[in-house]
Amino acid sequence: MDERDARMALCCAVEPGNRAVTAAVAEYGPAAVFASLCKPSSRSRWERRAKAVDLTVVRRAADRNRLRFVIPGDDEWPEALDDLATGEPVQEMGGVPFGLWLKGDADLAQAAARAIAIVGSRAATPYGRSVASDLAAGLGSHGIAVVSGGAYGIDAAAHEGALATSVPTIAVMAGGLDSPYPPGNAALLQRVAGQGLLVSELPPGEHPTRSRFLARNRLIAALSRATVIVEAAWRSGARNTVSWASACGRVVLAVPGPVHSATSTTPHRLIRDAEAVLCTGVPDVLELVGPLGRQPPGRPDQHRLLDELNADELAVYEAFPARGEIDAGEVSLRAGLALGNCLAILDRISERGLIEYGAAGWKLTRPVTRTGD
Amino acid sequence: MDERDARMALCCAVEPGNRAVTAAVAEYGPAAVFASLCKPSSRSRWERRAKAVDLTVVRRAADRNRLRFVIPGDDEWPEALDDLATGEPVQEMGGVPFGLWLKGDADLAQAAARAIAIVGSRAATPYGRSVASDLAAGLGSHGIAVVSGGAYGIDAAAHEGALATSVPTIAVMAGGLDSPYPPGNAALLQRVAGQGLLVSELPPGEHPTRSRFLARNRLIAALSRATVIVEAAWRSGARNTVSWASACGRVVLAVPGPVHSATSTTPHRLIRDAEAVLCTGVPDVLELVGPLGRQPPGRPDQHRLLDELNADELAVYEAFPARGEIDAGEVSLRAGLALGNCLAILDRISERGLIEYGAAGWKLTRPVTRTGD
Repeated sequence: MDERDARMALCCAVEPGNRAVTAAVAEYGPAAVFASLCKPSSRSRWERRAKAVDLTVVRRAADRNRLRFVIPGDDEWPEALDDLATGEPVQEMGGVPFGLWLKGDADLAQAAARAIAIVGSRAATPYGRSVASDLAAGLGSHGIAVVSGGAYGIDAAAHEGALATSVPTIAVMAGGLDSPYPPGNAALLQRVAGQGLLVSELPPGEHPTRSRFLARNRLIAALSRATVIVEAAWRSGARNTVSWASACGRVVLAVPGPVHSATSTTPHRLIRDAEAVLCTGVPDVLELVGPLGRQPPGRPDQHRLLDELNADELAVYEAFPARGEIDAGEVSLRAGLALGNCLAILDRISERGLIEYGAAGWKLTRPVTRTGD
Repeated sequence: MDERDARMALCCAVEPGNRAVTAAVAEYGPAAVFASLCKPSSRSRWERRAKAVDLTVVRRAADRNRLRFVIPGDDEWPEALDDLATGEPVQEMGGVPFGLWLKGDADLAQAAARAIAIVGSRAATPYGRSVASDLAAGLGSHGIAVVSGGAYGIDAAAHEGALATSVPTIAVMAGGLDSPYPPGNAALLQRVAGQGLLVSELPPGEHPTRSRFLARNRLIAALSRATVIVEAAWRSGARNTVSWASACGRVVLAVPGPVHSATSTTPHRLIRDAEAVLCTGVPDVLELVGPLGRQPPGRPDQHRLLDELNADELAVYEAFPARGEIDAGEVSLRAGLALGNCLAILDRISERGLIEYGAAGWKLTRPVTRTGD
């Protein structure tokens, strides 16, 4: 069995997000793992399903629905998904998907290269839907693809906003792409496939389940450079996506709303606890993950400027690579400072002319020999 | 001239917030400074005004308006104002007021002991006014006095909310208390004086000016344990109060709102840049400055728990006094961590049973001998 077939078979036999099987695949390769699952002695909970896999049937269903199957190493495979290999587990799940079925003309790797996830409540308010849709359209006008889950409410509004631009939008499904869920969004999802992509790690014929939604959320988070949560009540699936985003080192942004609005509870809590950066619109997202087109400031004497920095400012400055660009999320991780704090410091030290906003991130105004180098 | 008279005369002769005169008073005492201002050779910009001061006239006007004059050292003088002696200047202003005229039956020191400032835009929305009023009433029901500036919009809503409770509310004026400003709030300010206090460092007969509003804002900030900014457009006087609060080491909270609302621009920016903590209601304020009535959690083995803390968590834990209580703002300062981050960590380590919420702040679950002690 070649690698592609083995990966397809694993998608059919093993529930998404299973860390034990994912780890085994990383160590022994997909063919060996699938073969071992099929052994009568495997005692695996997947044994029965592994034995029942019929790839001919799966391929026929995929062809009928114009789906393609991509695996790690393919040109279209987004490198970003590999971050799931090392990310923290969430609710005992995790791991790089064995492969993905895609439907649509867009190229997944290209679309995901600068994508932003917009997620939130199904029971969204008109306010939340309008923010999600405006945000998606605004990001689209900057050439940024929007990833979401195709659900009612915020997800649908985000896809709609993105569809108003010419940029692909990506809907990651928790079931097979032969009948995208929910049925009420069938027309929307067909348009998503027309301009962007439907994505799933489940083969045609499989239905969404609660655990598949949770595993699906890790793909939304990992495929994006940042996740924006627009509205979510305290118990909301969107919080799970936020956990995945944090687990794989992605920036989380949250949109505030009226304090009386139950659907703003989660965004407010995330912002208050410094788990998310407050987001009021496109510029807040761009500042974290992409170009804003700032003018480089003047360049006064570097050493004098460094002497004036306080400890946190120096930590932020020292987090910069000598050459090249870095985004605010990475600076925050390296400097060990909360992101909100980091953003304020980036503003301050850019005003002093030490750093500037480049094509795709922050950079030093000039490569310097560091003190102590 | 005795100290009280000298201070009253300084209030009449010198514009509020003048740092040079305040510093001189701290060094040479009010009588010597006022005498030197009156000398023909003083070359002081205050000379003409100092010579014109007639305390008999001032006292008569104060008596007529039932005002009293309090100075540092009086029982009713709030110690909190002394923080202005060492606080950073804001727009070149600063300093402890020479004295204060008060109108109303409440005791200023007692009311200010657990007061919260609520400030914001005069051009507030119905949303902002309702949040300000609910917040003030909620704080009042916890025995917390509300300080504001008596202006239209957020200020008025905050005083109104506070008046619905039995707790004093404090309106700090930028002119003399004989004709509180703005005239349209005369009835409201009369009710404030009836249940709480009107406060001003300007003698009767003086009118508000732009710089007096700015100097007044430092009193609002310093009289309160925290300042909550409810709504403010980008160019708003409320931002000045926030600067004062930060300058004298007070916690700043900001209330989010719809992202399209111009009056939520400043709160959103302050939250995003970690200059303010997001506030959705009374519990967020209480958690920072007063009791929340949390149940003390269980007490597992302390040493094992300490080993499990990461660097930031340990910094927060180490910020605690061995005995007694501390508020989150103080923890944040001591640990050198942004307040939002600090709040999240306080939650985490309280779940582990290392700290708990006491009568008026966070404390160690049991006084411990620290590692390294």
